Amino acid sequence: MQFLLTNDDGIYARGLSFLKKELSKEEECLVVAPEREQSAVGHAITLSRPLMVKKYRKNGNFFGYAVTGTPADCVKIGIKELTDKPIDLVVSGINLGPNVGIDVIYSGTVSAATEAAILGVPSVAISLDTRSDTADFSFAATFARKLVLFMLRHMSLLKGTPLNVNIPALPKDQIKGVVVTRQGSAQMLETFERRVDPRENIYYWLAGESLTNAEEATDTDTTALRNGMITITPIRYDLTRYDVMVDLNKTMKELAF
Amino acid sequence: MQFLLTNDDGIYARGLSFLKKELSKEEECLVVAPEREQSAVGHAITLSRPLMVKKYRKNGNFFGYAVTGTPADCVKIGIKELTDKPIDLVVSGINLGPNVGIDVIYSGTVSAATEAAILGVPSVAISLDTRSDTADFSFAATFARKLVLFMLRHMSLLKGTPLNVNIPALPKDQIKGVVVTRQGSAQMLETFERRVDPRENIYYWLAGESLTNAEEATDTDTTALRNGMITITPIRYDLTRYDVMVDLNKTMKELAF
Repeated sequence: MQFLLTNDDGIYARGLSFLKKELSKEEECLVVAPEREQSAVGHAITLSRPLMVKKYRKNGNFFGYAVTGTPADCVKIGIKELTDKPIDLVVSGINLGPNVGIDVIYSGTVSAATEAAILGVPSVAISLDTRSDTADFSFAATFARKLVLFMLRHMSLLKGTPLNVNIPALPKDQIKGVVVTRQGSAQMLETFERRVDPRENIYYWLAGESLTNAEEATDTDTTALRNGMITITPIRYDLTRYDVMVDLNKTMKELAF
Repeated sequence: MQFLLTNDDGIYARGLSFLKKELSKEEECLVVAPEREQSAVGHAITLSRPLMVKKYRKNGNFFGYAVTGTPADCVKIGIKELTDKPIDLVVSGINLGPNVGIDVIYSGTVSAATEAAILGVPSVAISLDTRSDTADFSFAATFARKLVLFMLRHMSLLKGTPLNVNIPALPKDQIKGVVVTRQGSAQMLETFERRVDPRENIYYWLAGESLTNAEEATDTDTTALRNGMITITPIRYDLTRYDVMVDLNKTMKELAF
């Protein structure tokens, strides 16, 4: 077996090192990760530029391939070009910061898992609910290993369905369990800060401070994570609103030309 | 009323000019579009850099705002900062090239419409099925106007559901009708071309030539478009696989720690 590991925080990120160290105890791990941070790139892929691929060594040992692209690029090129052996599972993370609610749409971490599923490889995105640069990834990495073994036992259930997993940044004995959740609809409270540069040009910074305070149901990823649970959300890449298709069909004669 | 128009081909693109000219016959149109082409950026947003916003004039008249960001950025900043009046509808396009099947996931055009829906504004992404730089957008623009009036009549049905619309690049009398479709699963046949630069560095170009030849059902966007129909696919941004949640729930005790 061979796992492909990637992330959107970049190949130097601590969460990826923890993940590799732990999962290498089970199987061979091929790391293919962005050369630098790619947060909020969503499911971007690189068409107009080539991808540079460099071997990254750590403490004298080969650690993985650094790619001048997005997480989805890393998964594509990792599976198609950088190994002769098949990839059995793609693990994306461990992300520094949660990926819940509407943010899932913008997440490079999750998009890497989605790309793997599109290419027919079971996959999981794992995020830790803290943005502290001294975050302790130990428990999350241990859980990632447990989860990967679980996934290998349930391949048929998970075919075409990436998992989006979020882990509270709490000591193990304070984590209240593991729960299957749905994606919440909580959004960042976003504003733009307007500024003027030294040459009188106007520019804007996107600022997003906290989740909206809308009361969300307890079965959403946002609420369950806040309540100290590990959340597992199965996700899709068929974006069709099948429920709306029926009603929309009834209106089509209005569009005749 | 006020419409916001954007795209992923950039503010200079012909498809956007056609769209503005036609929709301006109905309502005021605010154009907020990427300064340059942003194809395949998916739902990327810009966090690590500021957005520069410049007024773009065409033939001496104000045409719209050019933004150094992605289509999703343009929708966010357009709705939140660049107008004091509410935006009633967001129209993204007219894209040069189809957005069907798996490509919908990578599409900046579609992501702009999704971003609008997240912000509570009804939206549509419109693409023309040709990559010819002399493409005739006339019929597509006329149809866009018809579609926008249709959407204004069906606001409650379309709340939270962006439409992904693809138009054949055919003369009007050869277009066979308008149909509600689901997103197909057709993928590009992708390969990476490996090259070596003058300094002996290895790099790769992503090459994707044509759709896979998998037989797809006639109710998919891919097949219906190929058959000369205008396709309308209602899409979602709640990515949860509700159908998988139930089975996954039964397995959760295996993940106890």
